[in-house]
Parts: sequence; C-alpha cells; structure tokens
Amino acid sequence: MVGSQLQQKIELAGEEIELNKPVEGPRGKQKNGTEEVDVRWHTATISRNQRESSAGHRGCVIWFTGLSGSGKSTLANEVDKQLHTRGHRSFILDGDNVRHGLNASPNLLEKIHGQPFAKRFGLGFEAEDRKENIRRVGAVAELFTQAGIITLTAFISPYRSDREAVRKMLPEADFIEVYVKAPLDICESRDPKGLYKKARAGEIKGFTGIDDPYEEPESAEITVESAVNSPQVLAQQVLVWLERAKVIPVR
Amino acid sequence: MVGSQLQQKIELAGEEIELNKPVEGPRGKQKNGTEEVDVRWHTATISRNQRESSAGHRGCVIWFTGLSGSGKSTLANEVDKQLHTRGHRSFILDGDNVRHGLNASPNLLEKIHGQPFAKRFGLGFEAEDRKENIRRVGAVAELFTQAGIITLTAFISPYRSDREAVRKMLPEADFIEVYVKAPLDICESRDPKGLYKKARAGEIKGFTGIDDPYEEPESAEITVESAVNSPQVLAQQVLVWLERAKVIPVR
Repeated sequence: MVGSQLQQKIELAGEEIELNKPVEGPRGKQKNGTEEVDVRWHTATISRNQRESSAGHRGCVIWFTGLSGSGKSTLANEVDKQLHTRGHRSFILDGDNVRHGLNASPNLLEKIHGQPFAKRFGLGFEAEDRKENIRRVGAVAELFTQAGIITLTAFISPYRSDREAVRKMLPEADFIEVYVKAPLDICESRDPKGLYKKARAGEIKGFTGIDDPYEEPESAEITVESAVNSPQVLAQQVLVWLERAKVIPVR
Repeated sequence: MVGSQLQQKIELAGEEIELNKPVEGPRGKQKNGTEEVDVRWHTATISRNQRESSAGHRGCVIWFTGLSGSGKSTLANEVDKQLHTRGHRSFILDGDNVRHGLNASPNLLEKIHGQPFAKRFGLGFEAEDRKENIRRVGAVAELFTQAGIITLTAFISPYRSDREAVRKMLPEADFIEVYVKAPLDICESRDPKGLYKKARAGEIKGFTGIDDPYEEPESAEITVESAVNSPQVLAQQVLVWLERAKVIPVR
C-alpha cells in the first residue's frame, strides 16, 4: 500500500465507514416475511440550529485561561452553576474529567494498553504534550458546541499559539476567551497542593509562572480580576457578557 | 527531574492547575476600594444527577457497531432524530465529526503542527491507531454522558477488545452496545464509495470484512437486523429498549 492509496487510507483516521455515510443510497422495497418494507436508507441529521433551538441558547466555548491558582476552575464551576440554574445546557472540561480518560498520562495508559501505546499517546509534560492536551480539549469543546452546549474549559493553557489554534478551529463567535487574571504572588500564596513551593525548590521543572512562561492573552473577550472579586461576582460579569453577545437570552 | 517527581509530573497530563482545584481554600475578606468583599473561594459543582434531572432522562452511551455499509450511522442519526423530537438531549459522534478534529489523520495535523507532532498523535490505520481512535471516542462519549446526554457513536469498531475497553471505562448501565447486523454481501452491494471494490482489488489493505476481521459482539444489549427493516423501525426498537431500561421516560 503506497502513494495515494496509503494517503487515502490514512485520511480515514482508523474508520472506513464514515466515507459511506452521506451517500447511503436507496435500496428500494424488500420482502420481510409477508410484509413489503420500505428499506430506503437516507440519513436524517439533526442540525446544530435545531439543537440550539431546543436548548434555548447558542452553543459556544468559554475558554478560561490563567495561572495555576488563579481560580479558573472555581470560576468556570460558578458560571456553570449559574447557567444550570437558568435551565441552560452547560458543561465543564477540566483536568478533573479529562486527565483520567481523554488525556490520560503514559502511566495510566500503560496499565491497560501497554508501554509502546502509552508512550505514543499518553500525555506528559513536554511542550508537544501540552499542545496535544489543549488540541484535544479544543476538539472536544467543538463537539460539545455542535451539540448546542455552553462548554466551559478550565486549563492553564499557557501558550498563546495553542489557544489561538483552538480559536481558529471554531467559527469566530464560538470562542470566548476569558483571562482569569491574578498576580503571581497571590496565586502562589494560595498554592493548596504545594506545587509552587515544589517548583521554587526545583523539584518540579517547567512550572508555569516559575520556570515556564504564561503568555497573557492579547485580546481576550473577557478579562476578570480574580484577586479582587468573588467568583459569584465574576460569574455574573461573564453571564452579562453572554447576554449582550446574544449567546443566552436576557433574563 | 527523575523518579517520583517525574512520575508525579507526568500524571498531571500537561496541566498543573487541576491539582489545585478541589481544595481551593478560603481567602477571607479583602478590601476592594471601600467595599469589603467576601472572596472565599469554593468550588460549586453541578452533579451529573442535576444535569440529568434538568434533561429529564439519563445520560448514556449507545455504541453502534457493525460492518462498513451496515447502516450504523444512518440508524444512529434516526435514533438521534427521534430522541430530539421527544425533546431529549442527544448527540452523535461519528467519523464525520471526529476525523477532522479529535482524531485527525497525520496529514491533517502536519499542516498545522508539523511532522513529528503529526506522526505521534495523528491516527492512521494500524491496529494501534484504531485502538486509540476508539479509546478517544469512548473517553469523549463518557464526558457527554456525564453531561446528561444520550451519546450515539457510529464506528465500525471491529475489535471486541476495544469495545470492551470502552465498556469497562463506564458504569455498567451507561454502555449500551447495539450490533447493527447485516450480511457482508449486502453491505458490500451498497458500497456507495466503492471501498469494498477497492479492498477486493487489493488497493486498500486491512479493510474490515475483507482482509481484516470484524469480531461480532457476544452479548450486545441490542441487535438489529439492518437488512430486513427500515431505519425508522430499527430506531423504534432502540427507543423501546431505552424506555424499558428507564434511560428515557415512556411516552
């Protein structure tokens, strides 16, 4: 298998069937016992618009970015809660739910799938791994958006280019970047798991804000100051923005 | 960085912040201008139960498996349509929406992320790539399930071990395997994109059903005969099953 065949094969990304789908043709009438059954096969797809109509709001990605300890995850959860309270469809993607499954570490994958598999697909801490981490989250957030869901992601996502790559994957109005801004010393003073302390002691290398850069957003849709306001207040700011952008109806 | 530090680092899967989340502690009162603001930070999470209550049904994964041309995708779309018509929250994961993003091929990734990245994370057609293809889909389906969504997946997923790996990732009641059964000759006669023809001619290697095995489910929750019934009838069978299993309310 070489040349164009190989190429075509690889483009299929591990599944042949999908090429078949859009043009699954009529098969006409067939006998089923005594009954004649119309087994014409056509694909009835529900559009994103239809899902959004049913939800009563638009789907989108709200991408929370900021230093470790800035409160991204807490704020995303508060926004999620306020949206849920209004009856909207929202969901959070964060380390809690992706790092044991979708973006599992080599160690986790090795137990089930063996070492070579784990080494290739497991996500560690190098720049390439971080990039793939964010790429997969972006791709999944896009799927949730297609489903008409307000998708909240909470990842440090320190590199501007990785965030911009996700932005470019999506229609313009679908990507809402929220910079959760807080001074490093405040983030470091929270340090509930002692990661900053370990990074300062040189026990962890490549820690964002210490010996790896955090690249501030240059034109985030929303910037919130998490050192001066409560999550409830900041979440309200996000919801007002969503109302004005017509993502959600004004209450 | 060696030994246990490395291990700990890698377990984080590219993001430090997540370790901080569950124990983000109180920060007490702070001055904000003249006003004293309560900036106690705690994470208010919406549970899966709350999302399901809001949806009016349970989240689950309905995993359609079968030969290329068996009609998995058409059937999944019909089930999606019927669920949507009832006002339920459902979504489809299939080649159409994962192979350009989440499970992109090496060729697609290379354009954006360069060759080494594409070679490592892009999904081709080898057994390992197929396994990772299904693993990622399973992980994403789990996330949708957590969001209270009835998640329909339509992939050949020819290997029993890969499907079982997804099943094991999920609580028992959450994984509903639907075997879309049709004789190979019927699937081959549909062949709308001529892939079977190419496989027979040896132009495509490793094609499921021709020179790569399809391992039939041994205990699928539902088996439907797609050669003898219309998608509408088969979708009804699936919905009745869902009603009986109390995934969705009886209409």
